[in-house]
Amino acid sequence: MLSKNTIKRITRLGQKKYRIGEGLFVAEGVKVINELLESTFQLQEMYTIDEDLFTACNVKVISEQELKKISFLTTPQKALALFEIPKEVTSNDSGLTVALDNVRDPGNLGTIIRLCDWFGVQELICSEGTVDCFNPKVVQATMGSISRVQVRYVDLPTYLKNSSRTAYGTFMDGDNVYKTIVPQEGILVMGNEGKGISKEVEKVIEKRLSIPRFGKLQATESLNVAMATSVFLSEFRR
Amino acid sequence: MLSKNTIKRITRLGQKKYRIGEGLFVAEGVKVINELLESTFQLQEMYTIDEDLFTACNVKVISEQELKKISFLTTPQKALALFEIPKEVTSNDSGLTVALDNVRDPGNLGTIIRLCDWFGVQELICSEGTVDCFNPKVVQATMGSISRVQVRYVDLPTYLKNSSRTAYGTFMDGDNVYKTIVPQEGILVMGNEGKGISKEVEKVIEKRLSIPRFGKLQATESLNVAMATSVFLSEFRR
Repeated sequence: MLSKNTIKRITRLGQKKYRIGEGLFVAEGVKVINELLESTFQLQEMYTIDEDLFTACNVKVISEQELKKISFLTTPQKALALFEIPKEVTSNDSGLTVALDNVRDPGNLGTIIRLCDWFGVQELICSEGTVDCFNPKVVQATMGSISRVQVRYVDLPTYLKNSSRTAYGTFMDGDNVYKTIVPQEGILVMGNEGKGISKEVEKVIEKRLSIPRFGKLQATESLNVAMATSVFLSEFRR
Repeated sequence: MLSKNTIKRITRLGQKKYRIGEGLFVAEGVKVINELLESTFQLQEMYTIDEDLFTACNVKVISEQELKKISFLTTPQKALALFEIPKEVTSNDSGLTVALDNVRDPGNLGTIIRLCDWFGVQELICSEGTVDCFNPKVVQATMGSISRVQVRYVDLPTYLKNSSRTAYGTFMDGDNVYKTIVPQEGILVMGNEGKGISKEVEKVIEKRLSIPRFGKLQATESLNVAMATSVFLSEFRR
Protein backbone atom coordinates (compact mmCIF):
# COMPACT_ATOMS: atom_id res chain seq x y z
CA MET A 1 0.00 0.00 0.00
CA LEU A 2 1.22 3.44 -0.91
CA SER A 3 0.45 6.14 1.65
CA LYS A 4 -0.97 9.46 0.53
CA ASN A 5 2.26 11.04 1.65
CA THR A 6 4.39 8.78 -0.52
CA ILE A 7 2.21 9.48 -3.57
CA LYS A 8 2.50 13.20 -2.94
CA ARG A 9 6.26 13.00 -2.40
CA ILE A 10 6.78 11.13 -5.69
CA THR A 11 4.44 13.14 -7.92
CA ARG A 12 6.03 16.34 -6.61
CA LEU A 13 9.31 15.17 -8.13
CA GLY A 14 7.84 16.31 -11.44
CA GLN A 15 8.84 19.80 -10.26
CA LYS A 16 12.47 20.87 -10.22
CA LYS A 17 12.34 22.56 -6.81
CA TYR A 18 11.23 19.32 -5.16
CA ARG A 19 13.86 17.31 -7.05
CA ILE A 20 16.51 19.68 -5.75
CA GLY A 21 15.03 19.68 -2.25
CA GLU A 22 14.99 15.89 -2.02
CA GLY A 23 18.03 15.26 -4.23
CA LEU A 24 16.03 12.62 -6.11
CA PHE A 25 14.66 12.00 -9.58
CA VAL A 26 12.19 9.53 -11.11
CA ALA A 27 13.00 6.84 -13.69
CA GLU A 28 10.37 4.55 -15.22
CA GLY A 29 10.35 1.30 -17.14
CA VAL A 30 12.45 -1.85 -16.77
CA LYS A 31 14.96 -0.91 -19.46
CA VAL A 32 15.71 2.57 -18.17
CA ILE A 33 15.84 1.45 -14.52
CA ASN A 34 18.16 -1.44 -15.34
CA GLU A 35 20.55 0.85 -17.19
CA LEU A 36 20.64 3.19 -14.20
CA LEU A 37 21.15 0.26 -11.79
CA GLU A 38 24.19 -0.77 -13.81
CA SER A 39 25.65 2.74 -13.61
CA THR A 40 27.09 4.69 -10.69
CA PHE A 41 23.66 6.18 -9.94
CA GLN A 42 22.35 5.31 -6.46
CA LEU A 43 18.90 3.75 -6.15
CA GLN A 44 16.79 5.03 -3.29
CA GLU A 45 13.41 3.36 -3.73
CA MET A 46 11.75 1.14 -6.29
CA TYR A 47 8.10 0.35 -6.96
CA THR A 48 7.02 -2.45 -9.27
CA ILE A 49 3.89 -4.42 -10.12
CA ASP A 50 5.93 -7.56 -10.74
CA GLU A 51 8.30 -8.66 -7.98
CA ASP A 52 10.20 -11.03 -10.27
CA LEU A 53 11.52 -8.17 -12.41
CA PHE A 54 14.24 -6.90 -10.11
CA THR A 55 16.69 -8.41 -7.63
CA ALA A 56 17.67 -5.06 -6.11
CA CYS A 57 16.85 -4.32 -2.48
CA ASN A 58 14.24 -1.73 -1.54
CA VAL A 59 11.75 -3.08 -4.07
CA LYS A 60 8.13 -2.52 -3.06
CA VAL A 61 5.42 -4.43 -4.90
CA ILE A 62 2.38 -2.27 -5.65
CA SER A 63 -0.83 -2.62 -7.67
CA GLU A 64 -1.29 -1.34 -11.21
CA GLN A 65 -3.70 1.26 -9.89
CA GLU A 66 -1.15 2.50 -7.39
CA LEU A 67 1.51 2.70 -10.10
CA LYS A 68 -0.86 4.83 -12.16
CA LYS A 69 -1.05 7.31 -9.31
CA ILE A 70 2.72 7.87 -9.17
CA SER A 71 3.62 7.45 -12.83
CA PHE A 72 4.41 10.39 -15.14
CA LEU A 73 3.67 8.33 -18.25
CA THR A 74 0.38 8.16 -20.15
CA THR A 75 0.85 4.39 -20.26
CA PRO A 76 2.74 3.44 -17.08
CA GLN A 77 5.49 0.83 -17.46
CA LYS A 78 5.91 -1.97 -14.94
CA ALA A 79 8.19 -0.13 -12.55
CA LEU A 80 9.13 3.27 -11.21
CA ALA A 81 12.27 4.07 -9.24
CA LEU A 82 13.74 7.00 -7.36
CA PHE A 83 17.46 7.61 -7.84
CA GLU A 84 19.75 10.12 -6.18
CA ILE A 85 20.77 13.10 -8.30
CA PRO A 86 24.56 12.67 -8.62
CA LYS A 87 27.00 15.34 -7.51
CA GLU A 88 28.53 17.38 -10.29
CA VAL A 89 32.04 16.42 -11.28
CA THR A 90 34.39 19.07 -12.57
CA SER A 91 35.09 18.65 -16.24
CA ASN A 92 38.09 18.67 -18.54
CA ASP A 93 38.38 21.42 -21.08
CA SER A 94 39.14 18.95 -23.87
CA GLY A 95 37.56 16.75 -26.52
CA LEU A 96 34.19 17.40 -28.13
CA THR A 97 31.42 18.93 -26.02
CA VAL A 98 27.85 19.86 -26.91
CA ALA A 99 26.41 23.03 -25.34
CA LEU A 100 22.71 23.92 -25.37
CA ASP A 101 21.41 27.47 -25.26
CA ASN A 102 17.89 27.38 -23.75
CA VAL A 103 16.59 24.13 -25.26
CA ARG A 104 13.15 23.87 -23.67
CA ASP A 105 11.52 20.69 -24.92
CA PRO A 106 12.15 17.63 -22.65
CA GLY A 107 11.96 15.26 -25.64
CA ASN A 108 14.62 17.24 -27.50
CA LEU A 109 16.97 17.29 -24.50
CA GLY A 110 16.47 13.55 -23.96
CA THR A 111 17.20 12.81 -27.61
CA ILE A 112 20.31 15.01 -27.56
CA ILE A 113 21.62 13.18 -24.45
CA ARG A 114 21.10 9.91 -26.34
CA LEU A 115 22.95 11.33 -29.37
CA CYS A 116 25.86 12.43 -27.15
CA ASP A 117 26.04 8.89 -25.77
CA TRP A 118 26.09 7.38 -29.29
CA PHE A 119 28.66 9.81 -30.65
CA GLY A 120 30.92 9.50 -27.59
CA VAL A 121 30.37 13.01 -26.24
CA GLN A 122 30.84 12.59 -22.50
CA GLU A 123 29.79 16.01 -21.38
CA LEU A 124 26.75 18.10 -22.23
CA ILE A 125 26.79 21.73 -21.11
CA CYS A 126 23.42 23.46 -20.65
CA SER A 127 22.58 27.12 -20.19
CA GLU A 128 20.62 27.81 -17.03
CA GLY A 129 17.46 28.28 -19.11
CA THR A 130 17.65 24.79 -20.58
CA VAL A 131 15.08 22.26 -19.33
CA ASP A 132 16.26 20.22 -16.32
CA CYS A 133 17.85 16.90 -17.32
CA PHE A 134 16.21 15.15 -14.34
CA ASN A 135 12.71 16.09 -15.52
CA PRO A 136 10.88 12.70 -15.76
CA LYS A 137 10.17 13.21 -19.49
CA VAL A 138 13.85 13.87 -20.20
CA VAL A 139 14.99 10.81 -18.22
CA GLN A 140 12.48 8.71 -20.18
CA ALA A 141 13.56 10.06 -23.56
CA THR A 142 17.25 9.30 -22.85
CA MET A 143 16.46 5.57 -22.63
CA GLY A 144 19.16 5.22 -19.98
CA SER A 145 21.81 7.32 -21.75
CA ILE A 146 21.64 9.82 -18.91
CA SER A 147 23.78 7.42 -16.88
CA ARG A 148 26.63 7.78 -19.40
CA VAL A 149 26.58 11.50 -20.25
CA GLN A 150 27.51 14.11 -17.66
CA VAL A 151 25.09 17.06 -17.87
CA ARG A 152 26.19 20.38 -16.34
CA TYR A 153 24.24 23.65 -16.00
CA VAL A 154 26.39 26.79 -16.30
CA ASP A 155 26.32 30.42 -17.28
CA LEU A 156 26.88 29.65 -20.95
CA PRO A 157 28.51 32.89 -22.20
CA THR A 158 31.03 32.75 -19.31
CA TYR A 159 31.72 29.05 -19.91
CA LEU A 160 32.42 29.62 -23.60
CA LYS A 161 34.57 32.69 -22.91
CA ASN A 162 36.73 30.76 -20.43
CA SER A 163 37.18 27.65 -22.56
CA SER A 164 40.38 27.24 -24.58
CA ARG A 165 38.41 25.33 -27.24
CA THR A 166 36.71 26.81 -30.30
CA ALA A 167 32.96 27.47 -29.95
CA TYR A 168 31.02 26.41 -33.06
CA GLY A 169 27.57 27.93 -33.33
CA THR A 170 24.76 26.78 -35.60
CA PHE A 171 23.01 29.50 -37.59
CA MET A 172 20.86 29.56 -40.74
CA ASP A 173 23.50 31.78 -42.41
CA GLY A 174 26.58 29.87 -41.16
CA ASP A 175 29.21 28.17 -43.34
CA ASN A 176 28.13 24.94 -45.01
CA VAL A 177 29.16 22.23 -42.51
CA TYR A 178 29.85 19.79 -45.35
CA LYS A 179 32.48 22.12 -46.78
CA THR A 180 34.07 23.02 -43.46
CA ILE A 181 36.86 21.04 -41.85
CA VAL A 182 35.67 20.39 -38.33
CA PRO A 183 38.15 19.09 -35.74
CA GLN A 184 37.78 16.35 -33.10
CA GLU A 185 37.96 18.97 -30.37
CA GLY A 186 35.59 21.87 -29.82
CA ILE A 187 32.28 22.99 -28.41
CA LEU A 188 29.18 22.61 -30.60
CA VAL A 189 26.55 25.14 -29.49
CA MET A 190 22.90 24.47 -30.40
CA GLY A 191 20.19 27.07 -29.85
CA ASN A 192 16.59 27.27 -28.64
CA GLU A 193 13.82 25.59 -30.66
CA GLY A 194 12.19 28.80 -31.84
CA LYS A 195 14.77 31.53 -31.34
CA GLY A 196 18.07 29.79 -32.05
CA ILE A 197 21.21 31.00 -30.30
CA SER A 198 20.75 34.02 -28.02
CA LYS A 199 22.49 37.37 -28.58
CA GLU A 200 24.71 36.95 -25.49
CA VAL A 201 25.95 33.54 -26.60
CA GLU A 202 26.32 34.61 -30.24
CA LYS A 203 28.93 37.18 -29.16
CA VAL A 204 31.30 34.45 -27.98
CA ILE A 205 30.84 32.09 -30.94
CA GLU A 206 34.02 31.79 -32.99
CA LYS A 207 32.78 29.81 -35.99
CA ARG A 208 29.30 29.85 -37.56
CA LEU A 209 28.04 26.64 -39.18
CA SER A 210 24.87 25.58 -41.00
CA ILE A 211 23.31 22.55 -42.66
CA PRO A 212 22.36 23.44 -46.24
CA ARG A 213 18.74 22.93 -47.23
CA PHE A 214 18.38 20.51 -50.15
CA GLY A 215 14.64 20.91 -50.65
CA LYS A 216 13.87 23.50 -53.33
CA LEU A 217 11.15 25.27 -51.41
CA GLN A 218 12.06 28.02 -49.02
CA ALA A 219 8.94 27.18 -47.03
CA THR A 220 10.69 24.27 -45.35
CA GLU A 221 10.88 24.85 -41.62
CA SER A 222 14.39 24.73 -40.14
CA LEU A 223 15.46 21.32 -38.90
CA ASN A 224 14.38 20.42 -35.39
CA VAL A 225 17.25 20.99 -32.90
CA ALA A 226 17.69 17.27 -32.17
CA MET A 227 17.81 16.40 -35.91
CA ALA A 228 20.33 19.18 -36.51
CA THR A 229 22.45 17.97 -33.56
CA SER A 230 22.59 14.48 -35.08
CA VAL A 231 23.82 15.86 -38.43
CA PHE A 232 26.45 18.10 -36.79
CA LEU A 233 27.72 15.35 -34.45
CA SER A 234 27.91 13.02 -37.41
CA GLU A 235 30.06 15.59 -39.24
CA PHE A 236 32.36 16.13 -36.24
CA ARG A 237 32.86 12.39 -35.78
CA ARG A 238 32.90 10.96 -39.30
CA MET B 1 -22.21 26.05 -32.21
CA LEU B 2 -20.82 22.63 -33.02
CA SER B 3 -23.45 19.92 -33.27
CA LYS B 4 -22.88 16.59 -31.55
CA ASN B 5 -22.73 15.02 -34.98
CA THR B 6 -19.95 17.34 -36.14
CA ILE B 7 -17.91 16.66 -32.99
CA LYS B 8 -18.32 12.93 -33.51
CA ARG B 9 -17.45 13.15 -37.19
CA ILE B 10 -14.23 15.08 -36.49
CA THR B 11 -12.99 13.08 -33.49
CA ARG B 12 -13.57 9.88 -35.47
CA LEU B 13 -10.96 11.09 -37.95
CA GLY B 14 -8.41 9.98 -35.37
CA GLN B 15 -9.07 6.48 -36.74
CA LYS B 16 -7.75 5.46 -40.12
CA LYS B 17 -10.95 3.74 -41.27
CA TYR B 18 -12.96 6.95 -40.85
CA ARG B 19 -10.25 9.01 -42.59
CA ILE B 20 -10.42 6.64 -45.54
CA GLY B 21 -14.23 6.59 -45.47
CA GLU B 22 -14.52 10.38 -45.48
CA GLY B 23 -11.36 11.08 -47.50
CA LEU B 24 -10.40 13.70 -44.92
CA PHE B 25 -7.69 14.36 -42.38
CA VAL B 26 -7.21 16.82 -39.50
CA ALA B 27 -4.57 19.54 -39.28
CA GLU B 28 -4.15 21.81 -36.26
CA GLY B 29 -2.42 25.10 -35.51
CA VAL B 30 -2.06 28.26 -37.59
CA LYS B 31 1.41 27.39 -38.93
CA VAL B 32 0.54 23.89 -40.13
CA ILE B 33 -2.83 24.97 -41.58
CA ASN B 34 -1.25 27.90 -43.43
CA GLU B 35 1.37 25.65 -45.01
CA LEU B 36 -1.34 23.30 -46.19
CA LEU B 37 -3.43 26.20 -47.53
CA GLU B 38 -0.43 27.30 -49.61
CA SER B 39 -0.05 23.79 -51.06
CA THR B 40 -2.20 21.80 -53.49
CA PHE B 41 -4.15 20.31 -50.57
CA GLN B 42 -7.86 21.11 -50.62
CA LEU B 43 -9.45 22.61 -47.53
CA GLN B 44 -12.86 21.28 -46.61
CA GLU B 45 -13.73 22.90 -43.29
CA MET B 46 -12.00 25.14 -40.81
CA TYR B 47 -12.72 25.89 -37.16
CA THR B 48 -11.02 28.70 -35.30
CA ILE B 49 -11.41 30.63 -32.07
CA ASP B 50 -10.13 33.84 -33.72
CA GLU B 51 -11.83 34.91 -36.94
CA ASP B 52 -9.03 37.33 -37.83
CA LEU B 53 -6.53 34.52 -38.30
CA PHE B 54 -7.66 33.26 -41.70
CA THR B 55 -9.08 34.75 -44.86
CA ALA B 56 -10.09 31.39 -46.35
CA CYS B 57 -13.74 30.58 -46.95
CA ASN B 58 -15.56 27.98 -44.87
CA VAL B 59 -14.13 29.32 -41.61
CA LYS B 60 -16.37 28.71 -38.61
CA VAL B 61 -15.69 30.61 -35.41
CA ILE B 62 -16.09 28.43 -32.33
CA SER B 63 -15.39 28.79 -28.61
CA GLU B 64 -12.26 27.55 -26.85
CA GLN B 65 -14.35 24.89 -25.13
CA GLU B 66 -15.70 23.65 -28.45
CA LEU B 67 -12.19 23.52 -29.90
CA LYS B 68 -11.12 21.39 -26.94
CA LYS B 69 -13.81 18.86 -27.85
CA ILE B 70 -12.53 18.34 -31.40
CA SER B 71 -8.79 18.83 -30.89
CA PHE B 72 -6.32 15.92 -30.80
CA LEU B 73 -3.74 18.00 -28.96
CA THR B 74 -3.18 18.15 -25.20
CA THR B 75 -2.95 21.92 -25.56
CA PRO B 76 -5.25 22.88 -28.46
CA GLN B 77 -3.91 25.52 -30.88
CA LYS B 78 -6.15 28.30 -32.19
CA ALA B 79 -7.52 26.46 -35.20
CA LEU B 80 -8.37 23.04 -36.59
CA ALA B 81 -9.01 22.26 -40.24
CA LEU B 82 -10.18 19.32 -42.31
CA PHE B 83 -8.35 18.76 -45.59
CA GLU B 84 -9.01 16.25 -48.35
CA ILE B 85 -6.62 13.32 -48.54
CA PRO B 86 -4.93 13.80 -51.94
CA LYS B 87 -5.04 11.14 -54.62
CA GLU B 88 -1.85 9.16 -55.05
CA VAL B 89 0.34 10.21 -57.93
CA THR B 90 2.44 7.60 -59.69
CA SER B 91 6.10 8.09 -58.98
CA ASN B 92 9.32 8.13 -60.93
CA ASP B 93 11.82 5.39 -60.28
CA SER B 94 14.67 7.89 -59.96
CA GLY B 95 16.50 10.10 -57.49
CA LEU B 96 16.78 9.43 -53.77
CA THR B 97 13.83 7.84 -51.97
CA VAL B 98 13.37 6.87 -48.33
CA ALA B 99 11.42 3.67 -47.59
CA LEU B 100 10.11 2.73 -44.14
CA ASP B 101 9.57 -0.83 -43.01
CA ASN B 102 6.88 -0.79 -40.29
CA VAL B 103 7.76 2.44 -38.50
CA ARG B 104 5.02 2.65 -35.86
CA ASP B 105 5.54 5.83 -33.89
CA PRO B 106 3.63 8.87 -35.27
CA GLY B 107 6.30 11.26 -33.98
CA ASN B 108 9.03 9.33 -35.79
CA LEU B 109 7.11 9.27 -39.08
CA GLY B 110 6.36 13.00 -38.80
CA THR B 111 10.02 13.79 -38.12
CA ILE B 112 11.14 11.63 -41.05
CA ILE B 113 8.71 13.44 -43.40
CA ARG B 114 10.22 16.72 -42.19
CA LEU B 115 13.74 15.36 -42.81
CA CYS B 116 12.76 14.28 -46.35
CA ASP B 117 11.51 17.80 -47.00
CA TRP B 118 14.75 19.35 -45.74
CA PHE B 119 17.00 16.97 -47.65
CA GLY B 120 14.99 17.27 -50.87
CA VAL B 121 13.56 13.75 -50.89
CA GLN B 122 10.25 14.15 -52.68
CA GLU B 123 8.87 10.68 -52.13
CA LEU B 124 8.59 8.58 -49.01
CA ILE B 125 7.60 4.93 -49.49
CA CYS B 126 5.96 3.15 -46.53
CA SER B 127 5.27 -0.53 -45.94
CA GLU B 128 1.62 -1.27 -45.29
CA GLY B 129 2.42 -1.77 -41.57
CA THR B 130 3.81 1.75 -41.18
CA VAL B 131 1.67 4.24 -39.24
CA ASP B 132 -0.73 6.26 -41.44
CA CYS B 133 0.73 9.61 -42.52
CA PHE B 134 -2.66 11.32 -42.07
CA ASN B 135 -2.83 10.33 -38.40
CA PRO B 136 -3.32 13.70 -36.59
CA LYS B 137 -0.11 13.21 -34.56
CA VAL B 138 1.91 12.61 -37.73
CA VAL B 139 0.45 15.66 -39.50
CA GLN B 140 1.30 17.75 -36.43
CA ALA B 141 4.89 16.45 -36.21
CA THR B 142 5.57 17.25 -39.88
CA MET B 143 5.00 20.96 -39.20
CA GLY B 144 3.55 21.32 -42.69
CA SER B 145 6.18 19.28 -44.52
CA ILE B 146 3.51 16.74 -45.42
CA SER B 147 2.38 19.15 -48.15
CA ARG B 148 5.77 18.86 -49.87
CA VAL B 149 6.59 15.15 -49.52
CA GLN B 150 4.55 12.52 -51.36
CA VAL B 151 3.90 9.54 -49.06
CA ARG B 152 2.92 6.22 -50.67
CA TYR B 153 1.94 2.92 -49.00
CA VAL B 154 3.06 -0.17 -50.89
CA ASP B 155 3.98 -3.81 -50.52
CA LEU B 156 7.59 -3.00 -49.68
CA PRO B 157 9.41 -6.21 -50.77
CA THR B 158 7.64 -6.07 -54.17
CA TYR B 159 8.39 -2.36 -54.57
CA LEU B 160 12.09 -2.87 -53.87
CA LYS B 161 12.29 -5.92 -56.14
CA ASN B 162 10.72 -4.00 -59.06
CA SER B 163 12.84 -0.86 -58.67
CA SER B 164 15.89 -0.38 -60.89
CA ARG B 165 17.61 1.53 -58.09
CA THR B 166 19.85 0.07 -55.38
CA ALA B 167 18.17 -0.64 -52.04
CA TYR B 168 20.33 0.43 -49.07
CA GLY B 169 19.33 -1.13 -45.76
CA THR B 170 20.41 -0.01 -42.33
CA PHE B 171 21.66 -2.73 -39.99
CA MET B 172 23.80 -2.80 -36.84
CA ASP B 173 26.35 -4.96 -38.70
CA GLY B 174 26.28 -3.03 -42.01
CA ASP B 175 29.26 -1.28 -43.65
CA ASN B 176 30.38 1.96 -42.01
CA VAL B 177 28.40 4.66 -43.86
CA TYR B 178 31.26 7.13 -43.44
CA LYS B 179 33.60 4.82 -45.37
CA THR B 180 31.09 3.93 -48.11
CA ILE B 181 30.61 5.94 -51.26
CA VAL B 182 26.86 6.55 -51.44
CA PRO B 183 25.34 7.87 -54.68
CA GLN B 184 22.72 10.57 -55.26
CA GLU B 185 20.26 7.93 -56.45
CA GLY B 186 18.92 4.99 -54.49
CA ILE B 187 16.42 3.81 -51.91
CA LEU B 188 17.32 4.17 -48.24
CA VAL B 189 15.37 1.61 -46.21
CA MET B 190 14.87 2.23 -42.47
CA GLY B 191 13.39 -0.41 -40.17
CA ASN B 192 10.93 -0.66 -37.29
CA GLU B 193 11.78 1.02 -33.95
CA GLY B 194 12.34 -2.20 -32.03
CA LYS B 195 12.85 -4.92 -34.62
CA GLY B 196 14.69 -3.13 -37.41
CA ILE B 197 14.23 -4.31 -41.00
CA SER B 198 11.98 -7.37 -41.41
CA LYS B 199 13.19 -10.68 -42.85
CA GLU B 200 11.10 -10.27 -46.06
CA VAL B 201 12.55 -6.84 -46.78
CA GLU B 202 16.08 -7.87 -45.79
CA LYS B 203 16.09 -10.43 -48.62
CA VAL B 204 15.82 -7.67 -51.25
CA ILE B 205 18.37 -5.28 -49.72
CA GLU B 206 21.43 -4.91 -51.92
CA LYS B 207 23.75 -2.93 -49.66
CA ARG B 208 23.94 -3.00 -45.85
CA LEU B 209 24.95 0.21 -44.06
CA SER B 210 25.46 1.24 -40.45
CA ILE B 211 26.39 4.27 -38.37
CA PRO B 212 29.38 3.39 -36.19
CA ARG B 213 28.98 3.87 -32.46
CA PHE B 214 31.55 6.31 -31.03
CA GLY B 215 30.68 5.88 -27.37
CA LYS B 216 32.89 3.29 -25.68
CA LEU B 217 30.15 1.47 -23.85
CA GLN B 218 28.28 -1.29 -25.59
CA ALA B 219 25.27 -0.53 -23.41
CA THR B 220 24.30 2.38 -25.65
CA GLU B 221 20.90 1.77 -27.19
CA SER B 222 20.81 1.94 -30.99
CA LEU B 223 20.00 5.36 -32.42
CA ASN B 224 16.33 6.21 -32.70
CA VAL B 225 15.07 5.65 -36.30
CA ALA B 226 14.51 9.39 -36.93
CA MET B 227 18.02 10.28 -35.68
CA ALA B 228 19.53 7.55 -37.82
CA THR B 229 17.56 8.75 -40.86
CA SER B 230 18.98 12.25 -40.41
CA VAL B 231 22.55 10.92 -40.32
CA PHE B 232 22.02 8.71 -43.41
CA LEU B 233 20.27 11.44 -45.43
CA SER B 234 23.06 13.81 -44.51
CA GLU B 235 25.59 11.28 -45.86
CA PHE B 236 23.65 10.74 -49.09
CA ARG B 237 23.33 14.49 -49.68
CA ARG B 238 26.59 15.97 -48.41
